[in-house]
Amino acid sequence: MEYTKPLAKLIECFQKLPSIGPKTAARLALHIVKMPESEVNHFAQSLIDAKTQIHYCENCFNMSATSPCEICSDKTRHKETICVVAETKDLMAVEKTNEYNGVYHVLQGLISPIDGIGPDDIRIKELLYRITQNNVKEIILALNPSVEGEATSLYLTKLIKPFNIKITRIAFGLPMGSELEYADEMTLARAIEGRVEL
Amino acid sequence: MEYTKPLAKLIECFQKLPSIGPKTAARLALHIVKMPESEVNHFAQSLIDAKTQIHYCENCFNMSATSPCEICSDKTRHKETICVVAETKDLMAVEKTNEYNGVYHVLQGLISPIDGIGPDDIRIKELLYRITQNNVKEIILALNPSVEGEATSLYLTKLIKPFNIKITRIAFGLPMGSELEYADEMTLARAIEGRVEL
Repeated sequence: MEYTKPLAKLIECFQKLPSIGPKTAARLALHIVKMPESEVNHFAQSLIDAKTQIHYCENCFNMSATSPCEICSDKTRHKETICVVAETKDLMAVEKTNEYNGVYHVLQGLISPIDGIGPDDIRIKELLYRITQNNVKEIILALNPSVEGEATSLYLTKLIKPFNIKITRIAFGLPMGSELEYADEMTLARAIEGRVEL
Repeated sequence: MEYTKPLAKLIECFQKLPSIGPKTAARLALHIVKMPESEVNHFAQSLIDAKTQIHYCENCFNMSATSPCEICSDKTRHKETICVVAETKDLMAVEKTNEYNGVYHVLQGLISPIDGIGPDDIRIKELLYRITQNNVKEIILALNPSVEGEATSLYLTKLIKPFNIKITRIAFGLPMGSELEYADEMTLARAIEGRVEL
């Protein structure tokens, strides 16, 4: 016997989401059936609202219900510093530090020749346009320390250098609270390479 | 900055599901925004359909779009054997073995005094009613090897014994492919206790 049809359909929907396997999908779907009807309706409406109401900021390409987004339209934010991230979730990670008061630029991806993603497939043109239009003083690259992140950083650095703008990259090294003895070679090598004078 | 409102609302909905923490919820919600609108609508509709179309079988209390459910109304199933499980997901686990051709009874829970769940809170009365009404020959208890499962098994055994029906319990012991040396003491003790003559 298979799951009854409406349940099988819902399991299939859950399974299409990232990191949700068949077992988790079944558990979530069974949970939905046991939830109060009002909550299920609210969930369904939230899905539709998220899809229909969220767009990308015309300026920084952050996901937002408004355009320009809340950050771009915030007058207390320093517009002369742009932090470049790959995705909205990376922007949120930087926001959570409460250490950054500039604006962002969301590339919506990273250069990845293996996946067929070239410089024209991400929001690089739009970043350059912002640099030429506004009085930008610093570009901070906050991209993943991966092959794709490094390739994109390198590409952006070459492009931006001629503008005579300060261009920085977030530090790669030992995470706080970690132990040197357990750090992998790559991380430790980057930490030594990026050592700071005291 | 917090997530933009429609996104925050959706993240909250995902977070209410079992085993979904704040980070996974955010990842899933961001994925929804990137999905094609038709798929999101399909997902929303599936949620509502699962909630409104699925009910419990009047006979065995399995989740089903029909009542009696597909299994109870299947003429090739042996009605004289009832496999007692706690939840629909356990029923599905037994179904997947392709070894069982009887019918089921879903208790919709296990006796758990700590959580305030007594014998009257689960479908025990209904099981006894089925035993008195139909020509039942064997009851197979397929409940979790947990404190609650054991308590429920014991309770059911005492109740059903007077009917003079064969009552069995699925075997507890070493899982297939495991190694004796790594088995925990409880499992190994149950395996020795439940040894079978060859």
